[in-house]
Amino acid sequence: MDQEWVEKMLGKLAQIGCGPQGINRLAYSDADMHAKEFMIRTMRDNGLTVRVDSIGNIIGRLEGTVPDASIVATGSHLDTVPDAGRYDGALGVVGGLAAIRRLQSLGPLQHPVELIIFAAAESSRFGLVMIGSKAMAGMASRYAWGKAKDSAGISLAEALETKGFGLNDLDKVARVRDSIKAFVELHIEQGTSLEKTKKQIGIIETVAAPTMIKVTINGETGHTGSIPMEERHDALVSAATIVLAVQSIALDQSPYGTLATVGQLTTAPGTPNVIPSQVELWIDLRGVDQENIIDTIQEIKDAVSTITDEQETLAAIDMLFSEKPIQMDEYVIRKIETACLEKNISFRRMNSAGGHDAMNMAHLAPAGIIFIPCKGGISHSPREFADPADIMAGIDILTQTLYELAK
Amino acid sequence: MDQEWVEKMLGKLAQIGCGPQGINRLAYSDADMHAKEFMIRTMRDNGLTVRVDSIGNIIGRLEGTVPDASIVATGSHLDTVPDAGRYDGALGVVGGLAAIRRLQSLGPLQHPVELIIFAAAESSRFGLVMIGSKAMAGMASRYAWGKAKDSAGISLAEALETKGFGLNDLDKVARVRDSIKAFVELHIEQGTSLEKTKKQIGIIETVAAPTMIKVTINGETGHTGSIPMEERHDALVSAATIVLAVQSIALDQSPYGTLATVGQLTTAPGTPNVIPSQVELWIDLRGVDQENIIDTIQEIKDAVSTITDEQETLAAIDMLFSEKPIQMDEYVIRKIETACLEKNISFRRMNSAGGHDAMNMAHLAPAGIIFIPCKGGISHSPREFADPADIMAGIDILTQTLYELAK
Repeated sequence: MDQEWVEKMLGKLAQIGCGPQGINRLAYSDADMHAKEFMIRTMRDNGLTVRVDSIGNIIGRLEGTVPDASIVATGSHLDTVPDAGRYDGALGVVGGLAAIRRLQSLGPLQHPVELIIFAAAESSRFGLVMIGSKAMAGMASRYAWGKAKDSAGISLAEALETKGFGLNDLDKVARVRDSIKAFVELHIEQGTSLEKTKKQIGIIETVAAPTMIKVTINGETGHTGSIPMEERHDALVSAATIVLAVQSIALDQSPYGTLATVGQLTTAPGTPNVIPSQVELWIDLRGVDQENIIDTIQEIKDAVSTITDEQETLAAIDMLFSEKPIQMDEYVIRKIETACLEKNISFRRMNSAGGHDAMNMAHLAPAGIIFIPCKGGISHSPREFADPADIMAGIDILTQTLYELAK
Repeated sequence: MDQEWVEKMLGKLAQIGCGPQGINRLAYSDADMHAKEFMIRTMRDNGLTVRVDSIGNIIGRLEGTVPDASIVATGSHLDTVPDAGRYDGALGVVGGLAAIRRLQSLGPLQHPVELIIFAAAESSRFGLVMIGSKAMAGMASRYAWGKAKDSAGISLAEALETKGFGLNDLDKVARVRDSIKAFVELHIEQGTSLEKTKKQIGIIETVAAPTMIKVTINGETGHTGSIPMEERHDALVSAATIVLAVQSIALDQSPYGTLATVGQLTTAPGTPNVIPSQVELWIDLRGVDQENIIDTIQEIKDAVSTITDEQETLAAIDMLFSEKPIQMDEYVIRKIETACLEKNISFRRMNSAGGHDAMNMAHLAPAGIIFIPCKGGISHSPREFADPADIMAGIDILTQTLYELAK
């Protein structure tokens, strides 16, 4: 009965914004709003009181028996990337409500329990990641948010206004520290480590921090047939040397969980018979150990300088962003772990490569993340798939954790 | 007077097809035809008889005194790449006519002298290089030419028909071997070796042969944050290793004049936070020593296999084309050299990186190429520039060479 309800809910949400290539519920789009209205109705039908804050976060609340007791919260997001699958975000919302329905059947709890649907978690529309949870945690970037526009030229402020929201009351969106006892998010892994290790549950210790370094290399162009090899300052040769240096440095840092990748590289003029004059490449660096991240960034910067000095090319290094890893709360981690042991569900402690709303909530309250496997690690794609058995295991663990926190 | 006429002629041609970014006289375009009509009128005004063959080559002829004597020919092309400069091709046509005007003033010669304006030398419109001189040398690629289309979908056959030409009489375009005593082409260097060595004339010994190898590397994609470094098969890491191998192999081959460059490289999906699944790269290889070219191609192929085997990626190697270097004729080279010595004009023997119509004429007759410097090696650009003094030196040498061959 319970599993049927969960699958039906995920199926109904998947209809909203459904296109030929996947689900499209960009932040603050009509489809995003329709999905949220559907969830508001469903929460109310299930006896929750619902309020919406001025940035578009939705808070469904099950009251507790002790007046002014701190809140136990769960939740995730409903907005999607373009051509998305049905589990990223939606699982944490539907799974959160499924858990609360179970808690209701267990009888009254001392603490109130909230289901939060965070606004605009995906960066696809405005280039801003997790607007809702950042605002709730008091981490709004007023300047950047005031300037943000989507690809159609619609500003974030305009998009918010159209839907009845706005950037003017961000102080009221920010919640009071200590008012929340704990926040727990259920999410698909978007990676393959649970699948590979055959575990049903991942308990996140640290959310890795992303750093993006853009390197622009300027060399000397010329016709491929007329410049002797010895006289060249080929920007692509420098770039290739940098790609291999990044790979080699990252391999050395493996024990610390730091990863580095050149995922994009472009050559100019980009004609087979012209020596490249300029190459741009983007180094994506991720890690869970802040000290090692800083060391690795420095090592990469030094390598870029050494390589371009040797080859007499020029490099400009732009740090596009560099964030800090976020620790999940050990008390919440232990609660999740205990639930896994009690329910006899296989689990592992792990780190999360991607960011989730719980990262921001961790600034406000002790936070935890529960991962379930997703097939082949495929996400942000209509091929995204989570096994119903794993989904139900995730909901079991979330329910038990919330119960232990709220009882 | 002579220099004024040459500059006026180059200036008038530069007006035909002149746009804001340079000259545009794509093969068989209206502008290309207008330039040719202008030259036909000018040749006739100068007492030449002119005929046009069925592929659009224009042959202006100054009769000799000995009946049936073999022909001494010069010439180049008037079609251009998009946004071209005023010297590439046009110099050989205008300079050729200037030389013939001087020969006329010297009195009758035994051999007839021809000025040939070759049709469609540049590949920009149909992806086919030097259609006119190939047809004249009996090297027409009937199958490829029958299929060729421009970017607007107009076939070569249609373009020819619109201008009164066609692909049906290619046998008549091909000229009889031994009917031509020698062919000499005057051209700008499109490189910097004359400029660097401060010589006014380059005498070409060998026209380098281009080879283009496309390598497609397939690796395994995944999120940059979730795949451990040790488990990756990153297509860009393999590609970078190949770029450096190509560079290293080419440096070793430098004594043989073989050059190799990766001028273009593209990554897919090409997103900074996704490990590249596929990289395409183009290896441009040029050389004047056929044996060394073959060895170098093999060494590069072996390196690609070794690298992708080691990194457990997959490579597909496509030889897009691989031509043979063309030797210029030693008798013609000596005539040019003697002219330089007599006129006391500085010169060097050298190889040509780029292909010219004389390459194809070499299959029909002893051929030679006279280079003059072009500023900074810049060509295929409105910034293309040749010093008038160098132009006149080139015409002096061309005149003297043609005179010695035709007298």
